[in-house]
Amino acid sequence: MGDSWRVIASRGFRWDGVELERYKSDPSLFDGVTRQVLLGGAGEEALALELRYFEVEPGGYTTLERHRHPHAVIVLRGRGSAVLGSDSHRIQSHDCVYIPPELVHQFRADCGETLGFVCVVDRVRDRARQVPTDRPEM
Amino acid sequence: MGDSWRVIASRGFRWDGVELERYKSDPSLFDGVTRQVLLGGAGEEALALELRYFEVEPGGYTTLERHRHPHAVIVLRGRGSAVLGSDSHRIQSHDCVYIPPELVHQFRADCGETLGFVCVVDRVRDRARQVPTDRPEM
Repeated sequence: MGDSWRVIASRGFRWDGVELERYKSDPSLFDGVTRQVLLGGAGEEALALELRYFEVEPGGYTTLERHRHPHAVIVLRGRGSAVLGSDSHRIQSHDCVYIPPELVHQFRADCGETLGFVCVVDRVRDRARQVPTDRPEM
Repeated sequence: MGDSWRVIASRGFRWDGVELERYKSDPSLFDGVTRQVLLGGAGEEALALELRYFEVEPGGYTTLERHRHPHAVIVLRGRGSAVLGSDSHRIQSHDCVYIPPELVHQFRADCGETLGFVCVVDRVRDRARQVPTDRPEM
């Protein structure tokens, strides 16, 4: 038989039965970010991917980091910026972002609005490495 | 070096530089559906997945089909229904749907609204097989 189908109802950027998680364990590396794993968890092993929703409160930011696995991102809510290597790019609802392997990146809610986005990754992936914020080549 | 980063700006459920494509080649199997491949195309070979946006006009529907690869879906626009095996489930903006391997499925814009959704699949996948609409076990 395999896995069962599942519909996850949404209510204002929360999803039924989906836990609102802390973004990462070290709070000194980010500010005002939550994580919800929407698809690709237990019972959905046929998916080679995970679909996660991250929300950054106004003024907040994700970790400045890099890793081997790429990111496929679609913004669901608000406006902000994506730091992509040495560039910074304004993003808003429904814009898409491709982050290739090893590119230093960060998401910032720097437009006075909550920034929410879906980020799709491989189920099996390497661990993110934090990049010092004073790194000259960033 | 590898791939370059990319931000794709959105404007009213169209994306800059993204072609609005026909959903499938045989128009007798569906009605009022368009496809836009947002991420995972040329230059993004590091992604093991493709992120596509499908839009179904009011009264339209996708092919009733099955295949080995699973689907991870998030609704971006409107309301409608997902046919999932012998069930039909109402869906609306930001709801998520997991479609496991070999489950017969279809999306219907049967609420008088345009239904738009992102569907993420493996880059390498099997071909969909159409299911006759009079199939008793559907």
